[in-house]
Amino acid sequence: MPREIRLNAFDMNCVGHIQQGLWTHPRDQSTRFNELSYWTDYARRLEAGLFDGVFFADVVGVYDVLGGSADAALRGAVQVPVNDPTLLIPAMAAVTRHLGFGVTCNLVYEPPFLFARRMSTLDHLTGGRIGWNIVTGYLDSAARAAGIAGQVAHDDRYDLADEYMALVYKLWEGSWDDDAVLADRARGLYADPGRVRAVHHHGPQYRLDAMHLSAPSPQRTPVLYQAGSSTRGRRFAATHAECVFVNGQKKEAVREIVGDIRAQATAIGRAAEDVKVFLGATLIPGRTDAEAEEKFAEYRRHASSEAALVHAAASLGIDFSRFDPDEPIQAGGSQAIVSNIEAMARSAGPQWTRRKLLEQMVLGSRQAPWVGSAERLAEMLIGWSEETGVDGFNLSRTVVPECFDDVIALLVPALQERGAYKTAYREGTYREKLFGRARLPASHAAAAHRAAPAEAPA
Amino acid sequence: MPREIRLNAFDMNCVGHIQQGLWTHPRDQSTRFNELSYWTDYARRLEAGLFDGVFFADVVGVYDVLGGSADAALRGAVQVPVNDPTLLIPAMAAVTRHLGFGVTCNLVYEPPFLFARRMSTLDHLTGGRIGWNIVTGYLDSAARAAGIAGQVAHDDRYDLADEYMALVYKLWEGSWDDDAVLADRARGLYADPGRVRAVHHHGPQYRLDAMHLSAPSPQRTPVLYQAGSSTRGRRFAATHAECVFVNGQKKEAVREIVGDIRAQATAIGRAAEDVKVFLGATLIPGRTDAEAEEKFAEYRRHASSEAALVHAAASLGIDFSRFDPDEPIQAGGSQAIVSNIEAMARSAGPQWTRRKLLEQMVLGSRQAPWVGSAERLAEMLIGWSEETGVDGFNLSRTVVPECFDDVIALLVPALQERGAYKTAYREGTYREKLFGRARLPASHAAAAHRAAPAEAPA
Repeated sequence: MPREIRLNAFDMNCVGHIQQGLWTHPRDQSTRFNELSYWTDYARRLEAGLFDGVFFADVVGVYDVLGGSADAALRGAVQVPVNDPTLLIPAMAAVTRHLGFGVTCNLVYEPPFLFARRMSTLDHLTGGRIGWNIVTGYLDSAARAAGIAGQVAHDDRYDLADEYMALVYKLWEGSWDDDAVLADRARGLYADPGRVRAVHHHGPQYRLDAMHLSAPSPQRTPVLYQAGSSTRGRRFAATHAECVFVNGQKKEAVREIVGDIRAQATAIGRAAEDVKVFLGATLIPGRTDAEAEEKFAEYRRHASSEAALVHAAASLGIDFSRFDPDEPIQAGGSQAIVSNIEAMARSAGPQWTRRKLLEQMVLGSRQAPWVGSAERLAEMLIGWSEETGVDGFNLSRTVVPECFDDVIALLVPALQERGAYKTAYREGTYREKLFGRARLPASHAAAAHRAAPAEAPA
Repeated sequence: MPREIRLNAFDMNCVGHIQQGLWTHPRDQSTRFNELSYWTDYARRLEAGLFDGVFFADVVGVYDVLGGSADAALRGAVQVPVNDPTLLIPAMAAVTRHLGFGVTCNLVYEPPFLFARRMSTLDHLTGGRIGWNIVTGYLDSAARAAGIAGQVAHDDRYDLADEYMALVYKLWEGSWDDDAVLADRARGLYADPGRVRAVHHHGPQYRLDAMHLSAPSPQRTPVLYQAGSSTRGRRFAATHAECVFVNGQKKEAVREIVGDIRAQATAIGRAAEDVKVFLGATLIPGRTDAEAEEKFAEYRRHASSEAALVHAAASLGIDFSRFDPDEPIQAGGSQAIVSNIEAMARSAGPQWTRRKLLEQMVLGSRQAPWVGSAERLAEMLIGWSEETGVDGFNLSRTVVPECFDDVIALLVPALQERGAYKTAYREGTYREKLFGRARLPASHAAAAHRAAPAEAPA
């Protein structure tokens, strides 16, 4: 019996997310991203397909590295305009019962006290179906929007993030006891003040003296996602993340990352199975290989490699417009760029050029799609899961919503026939569905911030 | 023909809002505030009653003035726990078509760049039904939660607020032209970069260099609410607010405030009718006076004057526990408290005591309810509207949701019979319904931050 495979939709509150240019396809509906009915239909669809969740990316800046301006991003709708993803969730939760919601929030720009309340509110309103993808940002344009002159150095951002996490754990896990809310009408006693306490945090970056404004939500701390693959990012993930989102085109590289994160987690006392890993993937399933290839060919005609280059330039910090098409891309200045160049070289070969990069972007992204019959793709997912140790896949959209309809109609039954996909949702919160428990375990960093419970009820 | 009267529900994402203690009533459902279905039912109900909107209050601190701790607030559920109100709106908007949403956000604690995106996202998702109640906070406990040692002085907060408003106006009104989004699939051209520009704001409090992340929403700037009644607060309201929320138990006092705000608005070039004023009110209508009085008596048995004192102490900055029941309340220290005492004296008589204050709080609040037959209350609202110049009422809840059912079943028809209440919604955005136009007029402060439109289409 193969391991269970979990599926998330990977999306964003914008037009062009990963596969650039596909919004120009006549059947694509991503330009409806400002309509609530688009998102409520979307949620119902995913729940019908027993998706574990929808994972929302976000950026709080624009892609202005290529050519030194955001013009190309605007023309191609490359993650701009981009609206707040958290505000989609209440409407999507109201029409579903099981679907989980992972949402990206950049802690650098979110004051922790109000951010913690926002997550608790979502966890309450969704009945415990919220996850948070912890990011620390990487765009200079976002820093300028927040009035910060430049980016905090990469590793310093993770130190700031560690302090931020300690603070929100105190609010989520330590401020209110589970039995603090009595809601006793007869005695007129709503909460027991002896079971609620102020958090006092006086750190190098943050200072806070306050009780959490929200009573304990079903999960308290949201399910924690993280996507860092740098050395420092993996250490952060091993400490905090319950779900890690990785990308990679080669099994060996993915297996190495998965193994390293799990090894680091177990080294600090966590169980290996307490970290689930999701691999980014783009799927084009068909009833037959030929049908899938035909669909792929049709989609390709609407993809934009130029728009994909806008995204890649911002992600890597390299202005490709400064190189001739066949000129080898050289490491320019910063340490981060040098290491990005090395990473590119690992995946694309040591001597790569703008032309080679554009040739790789067959469907508007550096991520090549997996194309084939449902049976073939089911076997691929199972093979990847077994050989790399990943627990599931974050599926980026192509032509939406038909790309999800195809997965649900074709791939899900093929996975189910192979015993690799659930046939019904488990009951309970998002964390219960993923890990069989509503709260973080004692081995997680958050547990240190729990208060000793009060002795006796009021 | 009397003037049209507009009704908002006045509520909060918490248990005890204005009328304290009524959550203990067996039919009250406010303890369900964490359930989405509570709020979606609520929205459908208000829209069936042709309410103009729901107005959400918020606080980002706790009421810890009375007795120097938040214990009494916790026991009585006096606006704690309190969850984020913005997250209720997408779910409520998804099940309605006309209902407006006014939401309180404290600009002191919200970074402007992300706040502006949040409001634009809500305006997009609701189809232009969002309003923002601008507050600058007044709780020391909120300041401590944000890591600020104490409150910014009252008038300085308004200076900060004026700068904040200039900044968000630039983002909402000036960054994207109306015709910037082309969404031209054939040309693969989503937005025209020539019609989008970065905002450069370098002020004493805020610094930002970025384009707005959201394309123009139906209203751009949300409908602006404000509730300040201090001298500086009224000046701020006269400059920025389209809707002003006032409280008052005496017609002369309310007429004076309404007249003063409108006079200040016209003095700076706005039209008097561009400022709508809503009066806070608590209504208990019945089929007859006797039925209403009976309901009132039943509700009173569940009200809590002690919990109301918690709220009053925090609002006024006076720890009433330091006075004997019959000891005259004296101005203690700060200027703010002295002026609050003066305001109390105006409404409650010059020599007031804790006992007198508690006696006034007949239904868990300093705001006395209006009790009577639907006909009597309809005449009262019409009389208040005509004699004070207010345009509508923000109705605080008593026993929820039956209090709104009663207004809809009894009072609304009585107002309609008198020609003082609409019989159908107008089409269009929240601002169109209130003012007959989707955007702020040229006479409003926001208009100065609009960009000159680009010359010719791309």
